[in-house]
Amino acid sequence: MSQTIFVLNGPNLNMLGTRKPEIYGITTLADIEEQVRKRAAQAGFDVQFMQSNHEGALIDEIQRARTEAAAIIINPAAYTHTSVAIHDALEAAELPVVEVHLSNVHRREDFRHRSFVSLQATAVIAGAGAWGYTMAIDFLAHYLNEKS
Amino acid sequence: MSQTIFVLNGPNLNMLGTRKPEIYGITTLADIEEQVRKRAAQAGFDVQFMQSNHEGALIDEIQRARTEAAAIIINPAAYTHTSVAIHDALEAAELPVVEVHLSNVHRREDFRHRSFVSLQATAVIAGAGAWGYTMAIDFLAHYLNEKS
Amino acid sequence: MSQTIFVLNGPNLNMLGTRKPEIYGITTLADIEEQVRKRAAQAGFDVQFMQSNHEGALIDEIQRARTEAAAIIINPAAYTHTSVAIHDALEAAELPVVEVHLSNVHRREDFRHRSFVSLQATAVIAGAGAWGYTMAIDFLAHYLNEKS
Amino acid sequence: MSQTIFVLNGPNLNMLGTRKPEIYGITTLADIEEQVRKRAAQAGFDVQFMQSNHEGALIDEIQRARTEAAAIIINPAAYTHTSVAIHDALEAAELPVVEVHLSNVHRREDFRHRSFVSLQATAVIAGAGAWGYTMAIDFLAHYLNEKS
Amino acid sequence: MSQTIFVLNGPNLNMLGTRKPEIYGITTLADIEEQVRKRAAQAGFDVQFMQSNHEGALIDEIQRARTEAAAIIINPAAYTHTSVAIHDALEAAELPVVEVHLSNVHRREDFRHRSFVSLQATAVIAGAGAWGYTMAIDFLAHYLNEKS
Amino acid sequence: MSQTIFVLNGPNLNMLGTRKPEIYGITTLADIEEQVRKRAAQAGFDVQFMQSNHEGALIDEIQRARTEAAAIIINPAAYTHTSVAIHDALEAAELPVVEVHLSNVHRREDFRHRSFVSLQATAVIAGAGAWGYTMAIDFLAHYLNEKS
Amino acid sequence: MSQTIFVLNGPNLNMLGTRKPEIYGITTLADIEEQVRKRAAQAGFDVQFMQSNHEGALIDEIQRARTEAAAIIINPAAYTHTSVAIHDALEAAELPVVEVHLSNVHRREDFRHRSFVSLQATAVIAGAGAWGYTMAIDFLAHYLNEKS
Amino acid sequence: MSQTIFVLNGPNLNMLGTRKPEIYGITTLADIEEQVRKRAAQAGFDVQFMQSNHEGALIDEIQRARTEAAAIIINPAAYTHTSVAIHDALEAAELPVVEVHLSNVHRREDFRHRSFVSLQATAVIAGAGAWGYTMAIDFLAHYLNEKS
Amino acid sequence: MSQTIFVLNGPNLNMLGTRKPEIYGITTLADIEEQVRKRAAQAGFDVQFMQSNHEGALIDEIQRARTEAAAIIINPAAYTHTSVAIHDALEAAELPVVEVHLSNVHRREDFRHRSFVSLQATAVIAGAGAWGYTMAIDFLAHYLNEKS
Amino acid sequence: MSQTIFVLNGPNLNMLGTRKPEIYGITTLADIEEQVRKRAAQAGFDVQFMQSNHEGALIDEIQRARTEAAAIIINPAAYTHTSVAIHDALEAAELPVVEVHLSNVHRREDFRHRSFVSLQATAVIAGAGAWGYTMAIDFLAHYLNEKS
Amino acid sequence: MSQTIFVLNGPNLNMLGTRKPEIYGITTLADIEEQVRKRAAQAGFDVQFMQSNHEGALIDEIQRARTEAAAIIINPAAYTHTSVAIHDALEAAELPVVEVHLSNVHRREDFRHRSFVSLQATAVIAGAGAWGYTMAIDFLAHYLNEKS
Amino acid sequence: MSQTIFVLNGPNLNMLGTRKPEIYGITTLADIEEQVRKRAAQAGFDVQFMQSNHEGALIDEIQRARTEAAAIIINPAAYTHTSVAIHDALEAAELPVVEVHLSNVHRREDFRHRSFVSLQATAVIAGAGAWGYTMAIDFLAHYLNEKS
Repeated sequence: MSQTIFVLNGPNLNMLGTRKPEIYGITTLADIEEQVRKRAAQAGFDVQFMQSNHEGALIDEIQRARTEAAAIIINPAAYTHTSVAIHDALEAAELPVVEVHLSNVHRREDFRHRSFVSLQATAVIAGAGAWGYTMAIDFLAHYLNEKS
Repeated sequence: MSQTIFVLNGPNLNMLGTRKPEIYGITTLADIEEQVRKRAAQAGFDVQFMQSNHEGALIDEIQRARTEAAAIIINPAAYTHTSVAIHDALEAAELPVVEVHLSNVHRREDFRHRSFVSLQATAVIAGAGAWGYTMAIDFLAHYLNEKS
Repeated sequence: MSQTIFVLNGPNLNMLGTRKPEIYGITTLADIEEQVRKRAAQAGFDVQFMQSNHEGALIDEIQRARTEAAAIIINPAAYTHTSVAIHDALEAAELPVVEVHLSNVHRREDFRHRSFVSLQATAVIAGAGAWGYTMAIDFLAHYLNEKS
Repeated sequence: MSQTIFVLNGPNLNMLGTRKPEIYGITTLADIEEQVRKRAAQAGFDVQFMQSNHEGALIDEIQRARTEAAAIIINPAAYTHTSVAIHDALEAAELPVVEVHLSNVHRREDFRHRSFVSLQATAVIAGAGAWGYTMAIDFLAHYLNEKS
Repeated sequence: MSQTIFVLNGPNLNMLGTRKPEIYGITTLADIEEQVRKRAAQAGFDVQFMQSNHEGALIDEIQRARTEAAAIIINPAAYTHTSVAIHDALEAAELPVVEVHLSNVHRREDFRHRSFVSLQATAVIAGAGAWGYTMAIDFLAHYLNEKS
Repeated sequence: MSQTIFVLNGPNLNMLGTRKPEIYGITTLADIEEQVRKRAAQAGFDVQFMQSNHEGALIDEIQRARTEAAAIIINPAAYTHTSVAIHDALEAAELPVVEVHLSNVHRREDFRHRSFVSLQATAVIAGAGAWGYTMAIDFLAHYLNEKS
Repeated sequence: MSQTIFVLNGPNLNMLGTRKPEIYGITTLADIEEQVRKRAAQAGFDVQFMQSNHEGALIDEIQRARTEAAAIIINPAAYTHTSVAIHDALEAAELPVVEVHLSNVHRREDFRHRSFVSLQATAVIAGAGAWGYTMAIDFLAHYLNEKS
Repeated sequence: MSQTIFVLNGPNLNMLGTRKPEIYGITTLADIEEQVRKRAAQAGFDVQFMQSNHEGALIDEIQRARTEAAAIIINPAAYTHTSVAIHDALEAAELPVVEVHLSNVHRREDFRHRSFVSLQATAVIAGAGAWGYTMAIDFLAHYLNEKS
Repeated sequence: MSQTIFVLNGPNLNMLGTRKPEIYGITTLADIEEQVRKRAAQAGFDVQFMQSNHEGALIDEIQRARTEAAAIIINPAAYTHTSVAIHDALEAAELPVVEVHLSNVHRREDFRHRSFVSLQATAVIAGAGAWGYTMAIDFLAHYLNEKS
Repeated sequence: MSQTIFVLNGPNLNMLGTRKPEIYGITTLADIEEQVRKRAAQAGFDVQFMQSNHEGALIDEIQRARTEAAAIIINPAAYTHTSVAIHDALEAAELPVVEVHLSNVHRREDFRHRSFVSLQATAVIAGAGAWGYTMAIDFLAHYLNEKS
Repeated sequence: MSQTIFVLNGPNLNMLGTRKPEIYGITTLADIEEQVRKRAAQAGFDVQFMQSNHEGALIDEIQRARTEAAAIIINPAAYTHTSVAIHDALEAAELPVVEVHLSNVHRREDFRHRSFVSLQATAVIAGAGAWGYTMAIDFLAHYLNEKS
Repeated sequence: MSQTIFVLNGPNLNMLGTRKPEIYGITTLADIEEQVRKRAAQAGFDVQFMQSNHEGALIDEIQRARTEAAAIIINPAAYTHTSVAIHDALEAAELPVVEVHLSNVHRREDFRHRSFVSLQATAVIAGAGAWGYTMAIDFLAHYLNEKS
């Protein structure tokens, strides 16, 4: 089985660390990538790390994950709430999926309370900030180990 | 008048034949393309066949159809339920439109019950599997013939 | 297996050809019956063709279809949107069902957007005018053949 | 401070002047660009003018505006009603935003009554046709002048 | 032009005068028929008076009215609120329609507040008791006279 | 008992005969007043006829009716749908109330489908045009006679 | 007082024992009739047992019950959820009514959660299978005895 | 298998016989307990009878039933409409459950129309007064006998 | 044609400059009137400027505009969201209407998101502060010029 | 600081003591004024007491209170539920506001359950009858004393 | 008649004075109890003062009040919005009930806008802080005096 | 600062390992407690571990946590969806809160999609099974460390 975890990041996450630090903190996406790679390496996983503002590009990547990945960590950002297409791509991927949100979306605007991605996620982590990615790696290490 | 029919396929349809065969069958999109081309040829039509996971790419293609096509067959997949932009592109195209869904979307999740595309479609075919494309070609042959 | 297809037509379809031609065309129900019989005969099927304004009469006929028909084509007209009883009758019939609507109901009044019949239909065809019945026959010929 | 105004146009606006003139008029997007550039030049602004059918491309451009623009004029077209991602990009941009709609969206279909973009806009102009862009330039000239 | 007015009465109106007199009064349907015939005769109209508990039978009669009547007076009773099929029959009839309710339905249960029949009615009279039928005759005498 | 009927007309009815004749006809409010006075006189009633664009003025008049009128005919126009205060005034008046609408409000915009006034009306007449006032007088003549 | 109990059965219940045994069991309607007659006889009651797919026929029978029955047991099946007319007929009957459902309707589709019949029922029994009819007889024996 | 039936009563049922006799009758909870014990004894069952105003105490008892009871009869009173926790406890109990309501809850306030308990009940009896408990015992005697 | 523009201001706008400056700025209504008159004069228009807290007074003025004005600029303030009567008055006026809001109403309370006035407006300007009136004048100068 | 309390009364409160005594009691508004003046005098306050059926007149008075009053007691009656304009006037007044309702509005019709005034009130008193005004005076005496 | 008033306090009110002083003030529940006892004593009443986080304990106490109290003052805190069981207990108590909220719940989260307790309250006081309890005592002194 | 973490478990979690293993796994609550204690000890934390079926008992414990704990981990089970009181207790506690759900609640029944607890949680973890508790400990170790 593949030992690669795909870590996919949705729209505007490339702006991380530059806006609304009181909600998202000052960590940049590059910081997160580094932290994720380190933790994954410790657990024996490779990481494919990617960000896009394009819904279609995220779907392309999820489809690639289907055959190349052991699991997906996805922070779908705004597409969480509007993308049936990402929902369908994840369903087709037939992989363990961890949905990560930096902020606790349940405390924000009403339109952030519906998640199409949660309907396909194995686990959901929200509000843990950048640390949520680390938790997702740890969970997958535990989860994939238990399955095998 | 143009004798070309544009057959447009939305997100994740490139995965056809690899997932959920109990809902979508084992036919691949390439199988469908072949079947569609054959039926269209018998009816005297050329076919432009295309699939994309990108909403924008589908809109670009619908805009191209406006001047190059006699009609559009579209399986918008997940974008059926969320894309006002495809709705608007079809409205601007001012062409006969057949909306095709492999599965009977009315029997699936609630969020698949609203279709922006149906508001611009001439006809809608759902639940006929891959055969729905053939039915769409037959309908257009009949429809365009009657109009002319 | 039975080689008969029941073609059932709901309320006011007997008025076809006399009202709102811009929506329904000038074809009468008798024209449709003739066209359906011809197409069915080519495909090796008998046809039982029936229309009623009475919900109960349509249910009686669906129940008869259960043992006498290979499949049902139904244009439930107004009962599409209000009849749980027809829904239940179709469920009990355990046959392939094609739901046909002359017009694209999705473009009409809000109260025509809910269909109880779609929840029991194998396939749905809307907006193809009288030709939709022909498409339904073709679909069933293909579908029943594939099953057998 | 930057003296550039980004003027962003959403899906199908490249079709302007070719469809539904009774709603949108006969002016093309090139006409609007010319008119906007002229008015902006008079007010001492450069203009970056752009159109895309791709939600992601619009987000990329809004992100670029963050550091290169003094303000954004955006006609999000169909994405007005469905794009949380554009909403988030505008929020991150932390710039004055003028939302422009050619038609009075409040008089059209229900699904055009919700705007995610309005939640991030400084000002909203709807129904003024192509002239709405000129009004937006005038407003920004006034607004940026008053701020400085 | 026909000089006949069809007066159609929906389910349970045959029980009139036997139940809930505080809402419907003690007048029976036979009393109403007599009163209607007298008033219509004075105005130079014949009357076809009919009651049924069967939705289908009411539709059959509306269809007959299409060619035999100058106008329809209908008290659809409970079918007011549930019958799209009667709505469609009245639409097809293309005749002046007066909808009559003995009680003021707006003051009763919530499920009596929606009327499919009102969407096809020329005029609506509610809460005038049995006298509402007389008012309907008077209105039609005035209305048909004005049209001719 | 008082032999006076108060006929109250809500906002914009003073414009009658000048706008949207296809909905409201060409009759002016003065025409209606004359017609109402004549009919009322035949039935032995005086008429107090009044129009106002002011919700408060209509309430003042309803309160005056309480002690001076035998009944109220009211066409509340736009206030039908928004005025709880008129509802409460009518409730306090404890008089027979006939609600009249020139057009069939049920066929118009959604926001015209709720009537606070209907909750206090004895009878409701809609869609009968200016003739609806005459019908209201006739109804009251019949109703008050029956009560006494 | 009459010693007859009317037992009325709605649409598709004549199919009982032939479909979905995991929901409805294998008992036929004839079995139920026999069981009901036996139990009723023990309690000193005659039984009028009837089934129809026609809403109007059920209403006709309820109206007959008004003068001929001591009580009504009704399994309205699909009409439970859609028939205001049956609701009104039961209201007019002014008799004790027991509503019986073979399955626990609250665990099934959303559209089965609203019951117009419950608004007129004395007691409601759901989910007890064919035995629910026996319980209804026992209840009525107890209830009518207590009243007398 | 256990021969004990747990009969659980929710909040305020200890007040029975002291309030609203027109809805609940004059029978006290002690009367019901006696009646239930007698009937159960005839059918060969022991009874654990309990009432509490505390949601948690009812859950504790349902959990105890899991290993000690053959079935549960529960009148959850107000908790019917608000307690997901009782729903979950019943689901975990994996026992036949009969939900009993003294009054016909469907005829009362809107907030009494939703039942979380019905989603876990085998059968539901409402409106039969105190006799409903007896019916529940009879049903369980029949049901458990049939299963064994 | 009249060269007068009516500028109408709804309830509480006379308080402008005294409350919530962070939302509405410190400009008073007199300041706005002066600025509007100046701009209108430059464009060759007279101005009728008026404010009222009375819905009826605003309607009276709109009716006067019908024959005396070339166009209406209206800031309906709170009546935006509740007044069907102003909606109807504007509809009857059959004039170009510009709806102006000082603040971006879409970012405020939910009850400010529905506008009856927008349904009759030619153009809508929100969030441009007092400058929005100037923009409205400019728009009308452009619009009326183009029409003539 | 001003020592005057404005006591404002909405539509139909001038009818107090003449209608629905079982809801509002027999006290007239004059009785309330007297009682309020007495209690206020004891607490060292002047009272401005006013009633109007006109929404605009109530707003005018609230605006006057802004500079002349120490606090406002308002019983907005029907305007409670419909007037955004009164809401805005109270917001602009920036004074302590006590909202008083004679009856407990929460037990009455649904349309009385929403209060725009509560969104601006310091305190709300409902159901205490005419005594509620006295309670409001007492509260303000306590509240203003505590603030100073 | 009993001269005791039960003062019941719901969940988390024991934390009063320790959290969110900007909403609830710094007064502790002990302070309130003291203030209530003093005021009640002046009016000739004993007080039973109680707080619990347990819904069931509050119900037990309400039931005790039924025979031991002249009236109930209840601040149900969070249970206001979720407890049908407290609603039912208060209904059974058949005593005057004053519902008190320290804050104006109408200005807080949406889920605090529905009160089951208001449906059983004689009077409701919200937003008056700890003083609301004093007002409740005063009201009851007045109310009970008037009744006797 | 306290070095104790309170781990609170809601209704029916004491049944863990005995029901629905396909959703919740076979781990018992004792297993979880052991695992949590071990992990916490490694991170230098004490653990207070508690389960209750009583909403009030959970609130009591949250209140105790306020002064004795450094943070709260809570799996509120069914009370997640119904308890405003737990919401308020957590708000008053002013501590970091991690909400844990064994299953992914977003994929289950609709009534499990609303969480009052999430409105007060720092972070939310769902669908990670018993391992979610370990993740919560790790998160708090990271989070509290970062804060200090």
